[in-house]
Amino acid sequence: MVMTKPYLRIAAEEAFCPPEMFDIFREILGSDWLDDPGFRSQWGYFIDSQSERAVFVREALCSLGDDRIANMDAAGIDKAILGLTSPGVQVMQTQQATEFAAYSNDVLVDGIRKHPDRYYGLTAIAAQDPEQAAREIERGHGLGLKGVIINSHTLNEHMDQEKFWPIFEAAEALDTPIYMHPATPTRDMVGPLIERGLDGSIFGFAMETSTHLLKIIIAGTLDRFPKLKFVAGHCGEAIPFWLYRLDHMHNAMIKANRYVGVRPLERKISEYVRENFWITTSGMAWAPAIEFCIRVMGIDRVLYAMDYPYQYLPEEVGYTESIDVDADGMKKLFQSNAEQVFNL
Amino acid sequence: MVMTKPYLRIAAEEAFCPPEMFDIFREILGSDWLDDPGFRSQWGYFIDSQSERAVFVREALCSLGDDRIANMDAAGIDKAILGLTSPGVQVMQTQQATEFAAYSNDVLVDGIRKHPDRYYGLTAIAAQDPEQAAREIERGHGLGLKGVIINSHTLNEHMDQEKFWPIFEAAEALDTPIYMHPATPTRDMVGPLIERGLDGSIFGFAMETSTHLLKIIIAGTLDRFPKLKFVAGHCGEAIPFWLYRLDHMHNAMIKANRYVGVRPLERKISEYVRENFWITTSGMAWAPAIEFCIRVMGIDRVLYAMDYPYQYLPEEVGYTESIDVDADGMKKLFQSNAEQVFNL
Repeated sequence: MVMTKPYLRIAAEEAFCPPEMFDIFREILGSDWLDDPGFRSQWGYFIDSQSERAVFVREALCSLGDDRIANMDAAGIDKAILGLTSPGVQVMQTQQATEFAAYSNDVLVDGIRKHPDRYYGLTAIAAQDPEQAAREIERGHGLGLKGVIINSHTLNEHMDQEKFWPIFEAAEALDTPIYMHPATPTRDMVGPLIERGLDGSIFGFAMETSTHLLKIIIAGTLDRFPKLKFVAGHCGEAIPFWLYRLDHMHNAMIKANRYVGVRPLERKISEYVRENFWITTSGMAWAPAIEFCIRVMGIDRVLYAMDYPYQYLPEEVGYTESIDVDADGMKKLFQSNAEQVFNL
Repeated sequence: MVMTKPYLRIAAEEAFCPPEMFDIFREILGSDWLDDPGFRSQWGYFIDSQSERAVFVREALCSLGDDRIANMDAAGIDKAILGLTSPGVQVMQTQQATEFAAYSNDVLVDGIRKHPDRYYGLTAIAAQDPEQAAREIERGHGLGLKGVIINSHTLNEHMDQEKFWPIFEAAEALDTPIYMHPATPTRDMVGPLIERGLDGSIFGFAMETSTHLLKIIIAGTLDRFPKLKFVAGHCGEAIPFWLYRLDHMHNAMIKANRYVGVRPLERKISEYVRENFWITTSGMAWAPAIEFCIRVMGIDRVLYAMDYPYQYLPEEVGYTESIDVDADGMKKLFQSNAEQVFNL
């Protein structure tokens, strides 16, 4: 079907992995060195389940070839921005994580070279070794990758700690954005969620990722790296919903001088979110939420994403094109904003 | 100032406590039997801090007299629905909790009798003893209280467990709503939040309360008690933002048969939220969020609340009256919806 389209449809949060990652995950699940109940819940299911959903996800993650292209075509997606699926290397021991991140990036670059008109990619990094991760960001950038993907916490640690600054320094210096993708919550947050199935994409992903991003802001990271760019999926993991309250209560905490780890910042929390963040619609093909985010963040800050293969809905692009956004805005949502933030 | 007003301004989530509660909290903070880092963070601050905010909150919580009435007048609030402040008795040992809940309810009923044209009240209960809590709901109802307040978890337990059913049974039988008010997250969720000050009202409150309510729904509680009514503050603790994703992913979990604790339900999650929940605007005097909630929940389900004394903003009523809601809707927001759900 040949159509004249007024814009490209770029999907900004699409997942892949080399198949060897499943073997590593299976090893980790079979050992006891990793204390991460969320990972065990999520990948204990996905790694071997014969449910229709799990089988499809495993197969689709590993394809950078015809299957994926066919599904993109069926969904009307012109270009996909691919990132190593969660939690990627961030549950591995340091050396293995570093090596597998580089391997995965090489696999991705190779896949992109075979379909240069359909794929972009993000650099996976092993935050376990921040200096080495910074070098991998530089290497990935040199190979043409368009940003960095971090699947939230690394071995239960959040990046509000200064030891992770080399990663932010490298990303800022290259003007390359960090896609903060969800993972299941850290071991000291996931407890009450698992029994009722709330640990994963239904809810825990957003709790983990929003907490992580807010900790990074509150720690002053964006005062130290004021040009750093973050991308957050799932309509910003609901952070846009909380902007008023975050500003109000952060200000109250500062005035009360209540926490050692909460110091005055140069800007309001909402200003960091509006000025340093872009958000995508991954997994949130729902007009009220998307329109709310556009209202709060501005039309220049909201990007389309599908979250393939976890949420493959071929009708989603058409639905998204039916929401209350004018033609100029729709081009920004599907094309221009992605081109801008990822320097495509 | 005498004005003809087209509606009463009812504020639906206003906090109080008998001053003796501070003594009990001080005892708990000084002992080591309670493993609740969120409580220690919150009340370790509020109990003795000389910051302007803490001093005001402590004094204002204890007043059911002229000070509170004067502040209501200054803010344009005609009637306040009062509940025992968080976490109330839910950090106490069982007998003390049961006794103090009854005492607090008596203090509240006495305060209401002195200002019957200005106050309504909610029944505090000690969920530590569900059978006794059910009796207290009945006693409070007999004394004219208009609902039940539960300050989220009780000694780190959530009410998705069947042992709490006597509470729901009593509330449903009396057609009296349960206001699920926030607390700091449970000990197995609060860990990553405290260092950056996210444990309390800025963010952790919402994470705790939304998690708690979703667990109650997913456990099938509202299939067992289909007429039970919940009220949630802070624009529904962002649950309305997630309705699409909750339905989609809950359905996927059911199909995959992934969790023992996640069984098929009679309705979609969004249907329970829209049919069994009312939400208030407490602490969220922000047009984008309120208008989003009205769009998603319907104008019959959103109630005004101030969250006095934690968020005393005298200009808030005027601001709220400036948002994009017509005159009929404004009367529902400020008056009729509260009258309906609380049977005022």
